[in-house]
Amino acid sequence: MNPIRIAVDAMGGDNGHKVVVRGAIKAAKANPVKIILVGHEKKLANALRKHKYDGDAIEIYNATEEISMNDSPKTSIEAKPDASIVVAARLVGEGKADSFVSAGSTGSVVLSAARNIPRISDVRRTAIATVYPTMNELKRDDILSLILDVGANIHCSAEEMAQFAIMGSAYVSDVRGTPNPKVALLNIGEEATKGGEKMQEAYRMLKNMPTINFIGNIEGKDILRGIVDVIVTEGFVGNIVIKTLEGAANTVGRLGKLAFKSRISWKLGLIMLRKGMAFIKEATDYSEYGGAPLLGFEKMVIIAHGRSNAKAISNAIKLAGKCVRDDVCGEIAKNIHTFEREPEREYERMKSERYPSQN
Amino acid sequence: MNPIRIAVDAMGGDNGHKVVVRGAIKAAKANPVKIILVGHEKKLANALRKHKYDGDAIEIYNATEEISMNDSPKTSIEAKPDASIVVAARLVGEGKADSFVSAGSTGSVVLSAARNIPRISDVRRTAIATVYPTMNELKRDDILSLILDVGANIHCSAEEMAQFAIMGSAYVSDVRGTPNPKVALLNIGEEATKGGEKMQEAYRMLKNMPTINFIGNIEGKDILRGIVDVIVTEGFVGNIVIKTLEGAANTVGRLGKLAFKSRISWKLGLIMLRKGMAFIKEATDYSEYGGAPLLGFEKMVIIAHGRSNAKAISNAIKLAGKCVRDDVCGEIAKNIHTFEREPEREYERMKSERYPSQN
Repeated sequence: MNPIRIAVDAMGGDNGHKVVVRGAIKAAKANPVKIILVGHEKKLANALRKHKYDGDAIEIYNATEEISMNDSPKTSIEAKPDASIVVAARLVGEGKADSFVSAGSTGSVVLSAARNIPRISDVRRTAIATVYPTMNELKRDDILSLILDVGANIHCSAEEMAQFAIMGSAYVSDVRGTPNPKVALLNIGEEATKGGEKMQEAYRMLKNMPTINFIGNIEGKDILRGIVDVIVTEGFVGNIVIKTLEGAANTVGRLGKLAFKSRISWKLGLIMLRKGMAFIKEATDYSEYGGAPLLGFEKMVIIAHGRSNAKAISNAIKLAGKCVRDDVCGEIAKNIHTFEREPEREYERMKSERYPSQN
Repeated sequence: MNPIRIAVDAMGGDNGHKVVVRGAIKAAKANPVKIILVGHEKKLANALRKHKYDGDAIEIYNATEEISMNDSPKTSIEAKPDASIVVAARLVGEGKADSFVSAGSTGSVVLSAARNIPRISDVRRTAIATVYPTMNELKRDDILSLILDVGANIHCSAEEMAQFAIMGSAYVSDVRGTPNPKVALLNIGEEATKGGEKMQEAYRMLKNMPTINFIGNIEGKDILRGIVDVIVTEGFVGNIVIKTLEGAANTVGRLGKLAFKSRISWKLGLIMLRKGMAFIKEATDYSEYGGAPLLGFEKMVIIAHGRSNAKAISNAIKLAGKCVRDDVCGEIAKNIHTFEREPEREYERMKSERYPSQN
């Protein structure tokens, strides 16, 4: 059997290509994958030369251009067809790689994937999912839950949210090994009537899906409790929520500078807790968990955090490898097709096309 | 001069009328206000009898019915015209009280206000504002910022968000004494182009408002930094954000039970920090700050937290008194009228009515 091939955008991320190279070497040592480093040939060869690694496990694919974190995704992807991020996506589209990892700007990753990798048929919108740590009230083996979409889209329809539930469920059950994952809609109240017409419709739709273990709406205060495995929301809300949590973690880490200045016992407490605080901070940084999967394409795309260090890059590559091995995309496709092609869905769709709901 | 009259829904809240009565007595002692306790005459008289208080400062107004936290606001307000919450709102509408305070369910407060108190003319939608503690990077006298709307509405238009900015600004500058408060839109990125058409329109509108100190978009991670005085958002998002923060504060308080179990130093740190943790938890509970103002009516309505203790009720009454004294509603009306009646606005409105944007 041929090894799984992961294309890695070597020029993406805040920390430069040397960190990506180190991450790739780390990943190659630990995992039976073939890594294709995409970027400036000479720079990459120079960086690789400084390390010991298995020459069969890592190769370089030349890409002469780069897209920075601040470039407009749309403009730069069109202006730079030979940018590392675009070339990496193209390798996947052309079947020369099985998955692609980038620590570049989220917008550029999403757009270069959209331009080069086919969407799964019947998938209406792709979604960025991210795991985050919880109080694990479900007593799972790990403390992580998944939330999607956190920014591939701004707004979307009830049906699109139902599809997010299918994709998130398939991902969590495959990659995290959680059977029959619990799914919830993020809303402003628990009742089925909350949140306006679109949320009500999404609720009804999810309630009627036999393959989804839908437990209903949850509120913002429940996100960190870990009472569900998958939280479904629109990109606008998901993005703000995940960044709010990031900000809250930062704030906890900085509390020592605030009101506590004068209290010796609190100061001591903070010093003792410093490692715990660092944990909280790290825990919200998805680089620790190998990055955020972009769900809905025929091949898996992993968005690593812009601030990724070598370990985070290595984890992202490892995650990509696992997704290919477990055929997460195939599983998503199967579940989406089952949903979209059941007779009631066909009827629902006809009806909703005839009487479109207000979003 | 006649004293300011505050109608207090004595039967609202999770802790029963006795707690409200104690809160009212506390408030009457500290503030030159007249308190009208609205609720079961006998129960209130019995509760009052157990305390020493100035008989001129507190009176009872009989209301024979109650609406509980779990009742549907719409149904129960119609079915119970003599409910304490409805009667308290009616006293304000009839000019027999200057403001009204309730720790009842948010939905019932909003609805009974809407049925009984006129909206300020030109105000399109009322909004619930709440203050929350921040890292105070602006170095204000207090560490609080205001966010609105957090749940009077689900979604709203760009113009309605612009009005929220005006109302929030007026409130913060009057009540908190912050001159020229900094205002931001909560969005998924800082650039003016982020968040879709409606957010772009709100951005443009706010940018062009001479009376608003608009600093642009902020992201979720900036909410707790305290880099603005007023955050404007739609009710759906604001509600989820504020509850997410509440959940994060709870989680911090419960961290000791998690991964830290085995580490003695972390355990000790947590014990030392317990008071600090309690502070964080309290800090997100708006009862500490006298409740959340419901902005946009001709008279001020204060929504106290359902879990309010006597101190929180007292703070809410105090806040209501301050709002009346400072004529916050008059200030909001003036600023809304200035905005809505300037020539460019008239033109904008005509244009937007002709070419309605997609929300």
